[in-house]
Amino acid sequence: MSDVFDKCRSWKDYRIAKAAGIYPYFRSIEASHGATEVEIEGRRVIMVGSNNYLGLSADPRVKEAAIHAVEKFGTTCSGSRLLNGTLALHEELEARLAKFLNRESALVISTGFQTNLALSSILGRHDIVFSDRQNHASLVDGIRLGFATERKFRHNDLDHLEQLLAAAEPNAGKIIITDGVFSMEGDLCNLPRLVELAKRYNARLMTDDAHSMGVLGEHGRGVSEYFGLEAETDLVMGTFSKSFASLGGVLAGPFEVINYMRHKARSVIFSASMTPASVASALKALEIIEAEPERRARLLDIAEKMHNGFRAMGFDTGVSVTPVVPVQIGDQVKCFRFWKALHEAGVFANPVIPPAVEAGHALIRTSYMATHTDAQLDQVLDTFEKIGRRLDVIPETRPTAYEPVQIARPGTGVRANKASEKWAAGSAGHLVNPNGFSLDQLSRMSSREVAGKLFDAVEHLTWRAANFQPEDLRKLGGASRRLWKKRGELPGLLLEKGAHFFMKNGHDHNGTPVERN
Amino acid sequence: MSDVFDKCRSWKDYRIAKAAGIYPYFRSIEASHGATEVEIEGRRVIMVGSNNYLGLSADPRVKEAAIHAVEKFGTTCSGSRLLNGTLALHEELEARLAKFLNRESALVISTGFQTNLALSSILGRHDIVFSDRQNHASLVDGIRLGFATERKFRHNDLDHLEQLLAAAEPNAGKIIITDGVFSMEGDLCNLPRLVELAKRYNARLMTDDAHSMGVLGEHGRGVSEYFGLEAETDLVMGTFSKSFASLGGVLAGPFEVINYMRHKARSVIFSASMTPASVASALKALEIIEAEPERRARLLDIAEKMHNGFRAMGFDTGVSVTPVVPVQIGDQVKCFRFWKALHEAGVFANPVIPPAVEAGHALIRTSYMATHTDAQLDQVLDTFEKIGRRLDVIPETRPTAYEPVQIARPGTGVRANKASEKWAAGSAGHLVNPNGFSLDQLSRMSSREVAGKLFDAVEHLTWRAANFQPEDLRKLGGASRRLWKKRGELPGLLLEKGAHFFMKNGHDHNGTPVERN
Repeated sequence: MSDVFDKCRSWKDYRIAKAAGIYPYFRSIEASHGATEVEIEGRRVIMVGSNNYLGLSADPRVKEAAIHAVEKFGTTCSGSRLLNGTLALHEELEARLAKFLNRESALVISTGFQTNLALSSILGRHDIVFSDRQNHASLVDGIRLGFATERKFRHNDLDHLEQLLAAAEPNAGKIIITDGVFSMEGDLCNLPRLVELAKRYNARLMTDDAHSMGVLGEHGRGVSEYFGLEAETDLVMGTFSKSFASLGGVLAGPFEVINYMRHKARSVIFSASMTPASVASALKALEIIEAEPERRARLLDIAEKMHNGFRAMGFDTGVSVTPVVPVQIGDQVKCFRFWKALHEAGVFANPVIPPAVEAGHALIRTSYMATHTDAQLDQVLDTFEKIGRRLDVIPETRPTAYEPVQIARPGTGVRANKASEKWAAGSAGHLVNPNGFSLDQLSRMSSREVAGKLFDAVEHLTWRAANFQPEDLRKLGGASRRLWKKRGELPGLLLEKGAHFFMKNGHDHNGTPVERN
Repeated sequence: MSDVFDKCRSWKDYRIAKAAGIYPYFRSIEASHGATEVEIEGRRVIMVGSNNYLGLSADPRVKEAAIHAVEKFGTTCSGSRLLNGTLALHEELEARLAKFLNRESALVISTGFQTNLALSSILGRHDIVFSDRQNHASLVDGIRLGFATERKFRHNDLDHLEQLLAAAEPNAGKIIITDGVFSMEGDLCNLPRLVELAKRYNARLMTDDAHSMGVLGEHGRGVSEYFGLEAETDLVMGTFSKSFASLGGVLAGPFEVINYMRHKARSVIFSASMTPASVASALKALEIIEAEPERRARLLDIAEKMHNGFRAMGFDTGVSVTPVVPVQIGDQVKCFRFWKALHEAGVFANPVIPPAVEAGHALIRTSYMATHTDAQLDQVLDTFEKIGRRLDVIPETRPTAYEPVQIARPGTGVRANKASEKWAAGSAGHLVNPNGFSLDQLSRMSSREVAGKLFDAVEHLTWRAANFQPEDLRKLGGASRRLWKKRGELPGLLLEKGAHFFMKNGHDHNGTPVERN
């Protein structure tokens, strides 16, 4: 007899990572020092794992606005925008954002996630949505909650998009939806060509500017300002938890469309509205975004410094042209170990593993604030270099040359840096057998290298084994299966015991246990 | 050629309601006076349309906690709980809530809406969800985002649920999901029988305690405490935008299940975390909920006073046993007119129309705070009586007797009041042709009554006509169709013109235009 909760009990990733000391999530922040440094377990670390791009979450003017709103309106609106949860402040924020974004109308929603869910209200049974495969999870879910047909195109592959558009029912309503800046790899959508395709195939076009609003374009209006295509982009979405030092999101576009969503979107009408403090923070942040372009300039300078700093050491920062600076690691377990070493050395960055990126393409994602000091940034670079060498991610000596980064500064029109072969293969899902190696390769390794590779393989396999599903078990032979049945007796440190078990029972080059009889 | 935006342009409800002066939504609050009164368009009105049950949104202790958190941690966490958005404060709130709710573990999520979406992570392809038809929209969407099969049972009809359970694949994982207090009608789920059915059919059981946490049960732990069935209810969900004076939500249950959701739920890992101010508000509210049971007692006293006050005048408050006090109106347009009269008389309440309730079952939903004064409540009752008589919702003189309300006080076990025939018919969707009347009935009406009925019918039809979809248009004959094509020329006051048009072109008793050739 099955139980809905079975899947929770059989899921082991958490326990293994905890037992192995490489569990990297839900780190508890005890105090903040101007947002660029935080305290964890009583220790001060440099924060390069936040989306607080302009550093406004700690700005005294933003804090004061939030405090004033709490004093005036209390701590919550106790209801939805539709009914009792609309303050004059919400309307002011909407009016100011519509003006800022050059749109007829704007709608403010309680979280960025729910802002993308609100899209579902305009996606009807006879419509077709064309969606980039690397779009944010909230767009994916917003599309799933709508009733339109979905057609996914390969990441930034607009030839593929054009094929899908050309093959679609010509009379259907069509909309193309894409992230403006892709959150994990930091590259931009190809808006000029998207606009061209949208026109040719009578499709609407929407960009998610979560990571570009406040960051890109002369005035910080995001990807469509950056490309000079605001009038051609029908709908634009932004979040407040990044540059806007708050929590919430905005959809902006034609009055009739925004007004329809305002009344029909379930994530709007059935959810409590943004708190007074959050509305006031976003309003004040908007004012600062408009008044202080030097913050954006500094942020892009920092992005350039960090990309080039990493590249000079031999790291691969991929296609990013933004303050999202991903550092390629490759293997998931090594990525966790890199993360752990960073953490211990006082640097807060985030490991990104499949399914957020393709298998074998795990990376450490760093991102920066306009308020980081050069001293903080240099310390981050130094720390990465030491760990990168220790974990064989970069060579012992710096390469003689590197390809400098291109940054998406206003007016440049750059969209992505040229990807290294490894990066491109990872993004496209073509990284095969990253843990495998031949006897010939093995013979040329030092014993330290061999030990490292073996340890990687064992970790990797143990991880897989602990997460086996019934169909995997069917592949195991007799001895393996008997041992498998004893897995409940395995002590906490599964890695060690698991290693022993799997070393004895063998595995093929893809990391899959070999079938024996 | 279709356009995704067409549906937004052809939707007219908003314009008609605006033109007719009965648009009741998104009222902008300019100032708050201790939450029980607010200012709208410079005028002070009594707020009985909020879910701020304990009145804590304006409590100085809660405000101070929020302000302190802004000072210490800034205005946002700038990221998800998973990565950089977990403060020690979030963990403290989770630990305190787990203890308060007698559960192994609790997970705090950015909105109540997203808390229910998080359920999707445990609803797998081989599971079956049994869901009450009147469950909150966020549960409906959470279930849609999961991959389980959904079986809806008629509202609180547990015979129907049992049929569905008995007919389901015996080996499938099963979970029953229900609101604890139904938000629009204020009745409770039948938890004792749900527990019995869950046991008999090996199903898990989850309650949404959005409107009962902080309100029901000796200690305010919600529906399962009220029924003495906490251990038997596997998962419980609550929101912070109601009794907890904040924005966010909580899921509580077994450690393994909550931990799985923490790592797998997309509305958790892909959404920025609750702001420091919101976490601190909820924490302080929890402390007050635990320390001041007198607030709950006062709230239930108020609920009793209001239910009985309305009933004594001849209003129908239906099945509610809680501080959600719905007042039956019936027709949607009359409901809007009632709402408008309340608004003008200084009372803020909310119109609830289909699809939130069944057709013909429109109601004015009122809800109360422990901090309302008797003077405020008496003024609300007086205002309802005057308007109710003017709009023929209640008789000119008070009935000689009424059925007093039963309130869900701790230990009583009451679940619902006995519904009037009209209420029951409305809830069950059996109210047919609410605007129709026979010639015989017409002959017995005063001319004022006839005029009123005609006006209602015209309003109703105009509303429908303005929202026609292509399939409706196919039913229109030649003359009607020609006039319909001119609808773009209709001036702002559509009601008047629309009335003229439809009176000429006829309609049947169901309010559907009659087909002619």
